[in-house]
Amino acid sequence: MKILVVGTLAFDNIETPFGKAERIVGGAANYIALSASYFTNCIDIVSIIGNDFPEDYLNFLDKRGINTRGIEKVKNKKSFSWTGRYHLDMNTRDTLATDLNVLEDFNPKIPNNADTPDILMLGNLTPSVQLSVLNQMKERPQLVVLDTMNFWMDTQLETLLEVLKGVDVLTINDEEARQLSGEYSLKKASKRILDMGPKYLIIKKGENGALLFNENMIFFAPALPLEDVFDPTGAGDTFAGGFIGHLAKSETFSFDNFKTALIHGSVMASFCVEDFGPKRLIKLKPTEINNRLQQFIDIVQFTHS
Amino acid sequence: MKILVVGTLAFDNIETPFGKAERIVGGAANYIALSASYFTNCIDIVSIIGNDFPEDYLNFLDKRGINTRGIEKVKNKKSFSWTGRYHLDMNTRDTLATDLNVLEDFNPKIPNNADTPDILMLGNLTPSVQLSVLNQMKERPQLVVLDTMNFWMDTQLETLLEVLKGVDVLTINDEEARQLSGEYSLKKASKRILDMGPKYLIIKKGENGALLFNENMIFFAPALPLEDVFDPTGAGDTFAGGFIGHLAKSETFSFDNFKTALIHGSVMASFCVEDFGPKRLIKLKPTEINNRLQQFIDIVQFTHS
Repeated sequence: MKILVVGTLAFDNIETPFGKAERIVGGAANYIALSASYFTNCIDIVSIIGNDFPEDYLNFLDKRGINTRGIEKVKNKKSFSWTGRYHLDMNTRDTLATDLNVLEDFNPKIPNNADTPDILMLGNLTPSVQLSVLNQMKERPQLVVLDTMNFWMDTQLETLLEVLKGVDVLTINDEEARQLSGEYSLKKASKRILDMGPKYLIIKKGENGALLFNENMIFFAPALPLEDVFDPTGAGDTFAGGFIGHLAKSETFSFDNFKTALIHGSVMASFCVEDFGPKRLIKLKPTEINNRLQQFIDIVQFTHS
Repeated sequence: MKILVVGTLAFDNIETPFGKAERIVGGAANYIALSASYFTNCIDIVSIIGNDFPEDYLNFLDKRGINTRGIEKVKNKKSFSWTGRYHLDMNTRDTLATDLNVLEDFNPKIPNNADTPDILMLGNLTPSVQLSVLNQMKERPQLVVLDTMNFWMDTQLETLLEVLKGVDVLTINDEEARQLSGEYSLKKASKRILDMGPKYLIIKKGENGALLFNENMIFFAPALPLEDVFDPTGAGDTFAGGFIGHLAKSETFSFDNFKTALIHGSVMASFCVEDFGPKRLIKLKPTEINNRLQQFIDIVQFTHS
């Protein structure tokens, strides 16, 4: 199955209680595509970069089956850059700087052949940009997955609600689910949000796992307790990448297969946090993924009679 | 198997965002024994009450197979009372008043026949009281389970560490695990704490489930997303009661059976929070417990190949 990922490519400057790293190649589209590329090699990225983005990295993506033809290169501008500092709990962070640079002008044009994906993944972006991408699809993708954040709920709620009508799966965190729905109980929140358009809602809870809801069912994917969470940057996107990667590979859009996909997303996210940026993701081995998957199976399995 | 529960009986005054309730019969021993009584009817309580504690309630406990002979009645004093207010997140609360009353003089004497339990459950109490109970056991119980809290880590750490040496299972919440171990990562925290004596550590995470650790293994029990968490008072004790209740019924102390016991604890706790105090627990039906257990099985089950 063909995947189209629309999202940012960026330089991240990251400070955690464990250390500091500068000009790490990040961005939602990067993490999503990289993570999905462990399951399928038919992925397009649509994004925008400046004159400072490393050509080597684009070549690396190409070699992993990630087509970079849809990445617009702006000659006289710099790439989008984010600087942030994580607190000790690693679930909260302060944004120290957001340099939009090329992102200010991002008006994605989906290349021919990239506009007929089976799965469209809209990474966290201005809702109006997400809407423009949706409208450029030649035909309705079989599955549209959307990520967003509280900032867009604060500033562009109306457009966001418009986008949500065209979406199959929404991925947000627990605080965002509460904000979007106005409900504290996540179960009640899920009902409100599913009324807004999405058929599935994934609520990401960081070190507390993730929940999948549809109209009638709930599934819970645990997070694996790790020795150290080194850097959570990109974990949510990596999760989404594993999720759509598994779906593209298995070609089945049932609730049952969504559950398995959620676990694959969690597996990939558990690697992401083990090193700065996408370092750990770049050199994963299939056996590592399989072993980690087994850990996710074991951690919730019990005997009942 | 015989269970001995040592802990408080109390009146609770509870305020939540959903309402207010006064003089609810609570206390750790109450929730633990009540919850365990759905699995076994060979339970002793050792506790202390004042002249204001309802005789009817003691009769009710007796009828459920909970022997109340070890409950000391003080004629000229009042029962222990706790007043608290929950925040919207239901995970945090302010204690508005703690009236120790009879609890000031609590120096438990374990009655004959109650001092040979198979399972000893030490509810959250002054560590020196917990130690005195441990020392009164005629022979070492097959399983000693201990609950404690941050307050004792702040004020009686040395005695608490002494108690921990004689304990098989410690149940605390995530913040307490971090405080006791000095480690932020729960995996690292578990290693430190298991070095202090307990062979098993249960970390309770409220609406985010519970973790079970031994030296080499980890198990995760989810919490069920509920429409409403009405009142979390007693949920941790109810969890412990379901845990030891299942163990007493199944008579097997393996890691595998501990996992199943953890799920039973979670099932019982999920009922506890649905109404004020032990209201929901008092009139549970076996079919309700079985249906809820099936929900806990379903919520984490997925296909993998």
